[in-house]
Amino acid sequence: MSSITLPSNFNYQILIAHAASSLDVLLSNSSYSSIFILVDENTEKHCLPHIVGIPALNSAKIIRVQSGEKNKSWESSSQIFEHLIEGGADRQSILVNLGGGMIGDIGGFCASIYMRGIRFVQVPTSLLSMVDASVGGKLGIDFNSYKNLLGAISNPMEVIIDPAFLNTLPDIELLSGWAEMMKHGLIASKQHWNQLINSESIQSAAIKDLIMQSLAIKALIVEEDPLEQGRRRLLNAGHTIGHAIESYYLARDQPLPHGLAIAAGLRVEAYIASEMLHLKTQNRDEIWRAIDKFFPLIQLHLDMLDELLKYVGRDKKMDAGKLRFVFLEDIGRASFDQLLDMESLRKLLIMYIQQQ
Amino acid sequence: MSSITLPSNFNYQILIAHAASSLDVLLSNSSYSSIFILVDENTEKHCLPHIVGIPALNSAKIIRVQSGEKNKSWESSSQIFEHLIEGGADRQSILVNLGGGMIGDIGGFCASIYMRGIRFVQVPTSLLSMVDASVGGKLGIDFNSYKNLLGAISNPMEVIIDPAFLNTLPDIELLSGWAEMMKHGLIASKQHWNQLINSESIQSAAIKDLIMQSLAIKALIVEEDPLEQGRRRLLNAGHTIGHAIESYYLARDQPLPHGLAIAAGLRVEAYIASEMLHLKTQNRDEIWRAIDKFFPLIQLHLDMLDELLKYVGRDKKMDAGKLRFVFLEDIGRASFDQLLDMESLRKLLIMYIQQQ
Repeated sequence: MSSITLPSNFNYQILIAHAASSLDVLLSNSSYSSIFILVDENTEKHCLPHIVGIPALNSAKIIRVQSGEKNKSWESSSQIFEHLIEGGADRQSILVNLGGGMIGDIGGFCASIYMRGIRFVQVPTSLLSMVDASVGGKLGIDFNSYKNLLGAISNPMEVIIDPAFLNTLPDIELLSGWAEMMKHGLIASKQHWNQLINSESIQSAAIKDLIMQSLAIKALIVEEDPLEQGRRRLLNAGHTIGHAIESYYLARDQPLPHGLAIAAGLRVEAYIASEMLHLKTQNRDEIWRAIDKFFPLIQLHLDMLDELLKYVGRDKKMDAGKLRFVFLEDIGRASFDQLLDMESLRKLLIMYIQQQ
Repeated sequence: MSSITLPSNFNYQILIAHAASSLDVLLSNSSYSSIFILVDENTEKHCLPHIVGIPALNSAKIIRVQSGEKNKSWESSSQIFEHLIEGGADRQSILVNLGGGMIGDIGGFCASIYMRGIRFVQVPTSLLSMVDASVGGKLGIDFNSYKNLLGAISNPMEVIIDPAFLNTLPDIELLSGWAEMMKHGLIASKQHWNQLINSESIQSAAIKDLIMQSLAIKALIVEEDPLEQGRRRLLNAGHTIGHAIESYYLARDQPLPHGLAIAAGLRVEAYIASEMLHLKTQNRDEIWRAIDKFFPLIQLHLDMLDELLKYVGRDKKMDAGKLRFVFLEDIGRASFDQLLDMESLRKLLIMYIQQQ
């Protein structure tokens, strides 16, 4: 068992460890009135068997929601609340969120508003949720087709990362985590970036080290700025455009894996940064090559523009009508809070569409 | 304009002041991308005219929800979110909650989860919300028939108390605030209690002073224990039984004004405290006389018992199967975290029903 070197003011632990034994230690050592485990149909089948059977979970109650971003909804939250009520959850209960980002997000959100907040543990089972969702305390659900429109910032008791869960995943799911890891490299560490893009494949013996590096980058940024008043906004790189692309496909009932949308977002945003003369063209070319090595190209079209811009305009990153944008400045460095008006963004997107 | 002497670590102001001019100062001095005002049909008619027309509110957008506890629901929250989205609310927007406790609760809750939290101002218009809901940051909505099952603890930018709004209210609404004020006296100040019970009527010139006293008592308790780990639990006096009575009537679509339920809760809990030998019988008698002077008697019946106990059992105040109860010890003093098992409570309620 190893634990990430986290900044000192983190009030919870992130363990890279065997999930079953870590949960057994955590849940036996404290007194909880009841334990609930949130799963979706995939993690119920593939991940739950890894942890059931440990003594601390003998009387745990299982809550099941349907997988998929479109179920990160109020309706699913409502089901979770009903199960918590039926199971007699009180303020001394604890919720173990066993699953990918969707489970961590919705489970964490529900825990943080149920009775104004009960304790929860995150056990991320996807690469994306291991490197991204497990640090920083951002939780949320979608509303209508607006991603993460409702949410809270609240810390789990503990995050338990067990790389063994990655073996249960199809490759497309690994790509989603990979996009966030590339983003961490791009905004903060050329060294991390180089290790990532020189990997032969994602499923390698090095994945545990890469997860730890990526997590440490995110933890440092979040520590400096837990409430996202400043530097934490760097983590929005790729997400302004990426979320709009994701919303576009979600509204058509053709959900795109988050990482593919973010990779596409990073690709567009690298283009914008170079056109705005923040990023050298050669760096943009390297970024495009690296993204295209690992990710299928998501083509944008002119007839998507109005709707993409509408989603960007509804984004939480708007400030009095202008967009607060992250500009990549170099590989391993970026600046946040650059203002970009919607008309300029429209022109830049048209140029991108012509060159992609 | 006067402001309550609040403990030093309060990070927001409570003003007893003219609402229109206070809002004008607050909202002109800062830069908000947009201003929303939440009202119900009553405050839209009776209170909104007092504040519209001030320059800072020229471009404010009105959001309307239906009044009444049964609308402190997810469905109403959902409407509020839709209006915020339509009105282009972003993280720099602000929501002014103009109304009683229901508006402050649901509006504050929605503000605190919309985009993971936007700023809000509380302008309580009922006596109950002035003396109770305006301090302490507890926000929430009901879920199914469970009161405040979902919620958050989050502070407003400012609370503006304008006693002029009290003239817009029917007497039954004033009684609801009065019950909380009596509770504040009972748990913490015999002097406040005496002033209250010796009042000829609620609508008097002294009401402004009484509001300030009552608020100061609550603020002191909340300051010591913002997260309700200890002493703040005193404020649950009357609420363990009171909420159960409220839920009982709510489930029958015959909502009881909150204060009547709390007054009944205090009456039952004074009985329990005396039977458990915490409170002298003569004090219990004084409490019953005072409650009966101002409030109609809410009769409990044996056939309500099972359902009342079910609601008590679902209460946030349960700890591993036992109820954490507030016992009145004297007029002006109480103790919290007294454990009471459900079987004893059942017997005590049966005894109460025979004597009420």
